[in-house]
Parts: sequence; C-alpha cells; structure tokens
Amino acid sequence: MNDIEKLIQIMGRLPGLGPRSARRAVLHLMKKREALLQPLIGAMQDVSAHVKTCTVCGNLDASDPCAICRDGGRDQTILCVVADVGDLWALERIATFKGRYHVLGGVLSALDGIGPEQLSIAGLLRRVEAGGVKELILALGATVDGQTTAHYLADRLQPYNLAISRLAHGVPVGGELDYLDDGTLIQALKARQKL
Amino acid sequence: MNDIEKLIQIMGRLPGLGPRSARRAVLHLMKKREALLQPLIGAMQDVSAHVKTCTVCGNLDASDPCAICRDGGRDQTILCVVADVGDLWALERIATFKGRYHVLGGVLSALDGIGPEQLSIAGLLRRVEAGGVKELILALGATVDGQTTAHYLADRLQPYNLAISRLAHGVPVGGELDYLDDGTLIQALKARQKL
Repeated sequence: MNDIEKLIQIMGRLPGLGPRSARRAVLHLMKKREALLQPLIGAMQDVSAHVKTCTVCGNLDASDPCAICRDGGRDQTILCVVADVGDLWALERIATFKGRYHVLGGVLSALDGIGPEQLSIAGLLRRVEAGGVKELILALGATVDGQTTAHYLADRLQPYNLAISRLAHGVPVGGELDYLDDGTLIQALKARQKL
Repeated sequence: MNDIEKLIQIMGRLPGLGPRSARRAVLHLMKKREALLQPLIGAMQDVSAHVKTCTVCGNLDASDPCAICRDGGRDQTILCVVADVGDLWALERIATFKGRYHVLGGVLSALDGIGPEQLSIAGLLRRVEAGGVKELILALGATVDGQTTAHYLADRLQPYNLAISRLAHGVPVGGELDYLDDGTLIQALKARQKL
C-alpha cells in the first residue's frame, strides 16, 4: 500500500467519511498542500501535544483541571452530567448553565457492550461523595440508551439526597406539530406549562 | 481560538465535512488518540514528504516521472486526458486502458473563472508536439463544463492529425431505462450498437 492509499484508508475511519469521500478529501489535500495539508498537520500536532482530558470532569482543554473546573465563578453545587464532550460544548454555546460538568464518555449500551465500568460513573460517585454537590442535571440524549443511563444514574445516586433533574422533552423551538413524532408530542402535552 | 477550535475549523474546509461533522470527527480523533490521531498525523506527514506531482502527466506518485509514465510496457502512442487524479485512479482500477495519461487539473468553467491557462493544456500540447502520440481519448465528465473542455481540446488539437475520441454515453450497466434522464436515453439510442 502506498502513502496516499494509506492516508485514504485512515481518513475513511473518521465518522462521516466513507472510502469515496475520504479519497475526495485526500485529493483536495494534495491540491492544497500549502493552504490546507500543512496547516492541518500542524493543528493536529498542536492538539495532540497540548490538549488534555480533565481528570476532574472529563472535558478536553489545554490545562488539567480544565478552565471550567478551575473557574471559581461557577457554581460548584450544581453538576451537569453529559455523555460526551460535544454535549458539553453544546451547553457552553448557549451560555445558560453556570455550574460544572461531568462527562461520562458515552451512555450505557447493551448492544455496544458498554457497561457502567466503561463510563466515568465511579468518578461521578466520588465527586458526589466528596460533598458540596447539591443538584444534578442529567443532560443525556432522549434515546433509549440515554434514558436508560439516566435512570441507572438516578438509582445509583439516590442515597446521596440530591435534587436530580433531566432536560425537558417537548416541541423543539421552531418545530411544527404535524412533523413531530408521537412520543415527543405525548411528552409535550403531559408537561404542558401554564401561560 | 484554542487548539481544538482551530483543528475543527481546518477540518471543516475538507470537502464533505461541514462545521458539525468536523466537530464530530475531531471529537472522535480525541477519543482515539493512539489508534487514529497519531496514525493520521503520520500518514499525512508521509504523503506530504514523499508524494510528488508527476511533471509529465500530473499524476500523484512517490516518484517523478510517475510509475505509469516510466512503465515501458504501456503504449506511448495513446494518451488519455482526464480532469483530475481521481479520474485517473478510477480508470486504473478497471485496468483496461494500457496507454498513458494527462491530468488537466480540472475543467474549463466560466462560472468558477477557470480558463485554459489554469489547466495543464499547454503541457498537453507540448507532449503532442513532441511527437509519438497518435491517439487521444478525452475521458472528461459528461457535464456541461466537461463537454465544453472536450470540444475546446478537440479544436486546439485538430492541427496535429490525431485520432480523438471521447467516452461513450449510454445506459449505465445495471441501470433501469425508466430511471434514466432523457439526455442519456437519447444518446444511448443514437449510439445503439449492433448485436
């Protein structure tokens, strides 16, 4: 296998890129060696050298503990539990939550063989046991696996007497009712709010 | 902008990846640092260091002239003109053409401001003028720009008295007639072949 084929094969393992689009991406990189390939190599090396996983919450950052965990201005009594760093970023983008995070590194999945040991659940329990946390928001996806994980965590955390909540289900902002799936509509009706 | 955001921004400039899928790809790379990020950096460095553009035909290869141009077993009298290296690879995969190639580096496009000077047309004329080439296959896409380029090249190459052909249009193998566009069906009927 030559160098280009090897690069195409590795690129094809990225999510969202198949063998064909990996080939197209590599050809594009070859056309723009100076403008794209070199900066991409540099950016990957920077990330590889400088970005660490926060040993407290699991966030990715240039420092460990991460900037969020070190930020004294954030509420240390509220912990928001997310599956992945991407979810943490999504919550940071809306700049509404001012507590801290805990990244599980995935959700429980019998199909993918992911049990509690594969996730950062022991770490979460340790943080709760250390004291100071009064409220927990389980910001997990509204999928079967996400909800299973939420129920499992609620069970495990029951002894600690925390206020535990999950994200609201309902009509997405801008969403049309007749395009909505039945499950969401049922949840939206059940959790209807006074005007 | 931190290291991760910079990497996401550069990844998002690859064809087939938008801002969202670039973020997903980068998170995947961060999860698989040893298994994916490091090999990807290595493969990119290898390609960057070793892969050259063939000064004769425009192919990408570890050597210049490329392996195809140096292969004495290939017919030097037939030249197959393609728009991009990806097209050359597609033709090499079917292992049917045994001549040599000429990569234009794109097709003429008024919309994208690509004129004859932006393509390797002068290089093609030089190869033809140097003598030895008797037949030319214009293997360009069946798009408006591809066909414009083919006609332009046929005009420019007319003085050299070559046998010039283009790829056949017709029903794709495995294709159903009633899913075919009208243009292809017209071409397929006009170019019908004796059984």
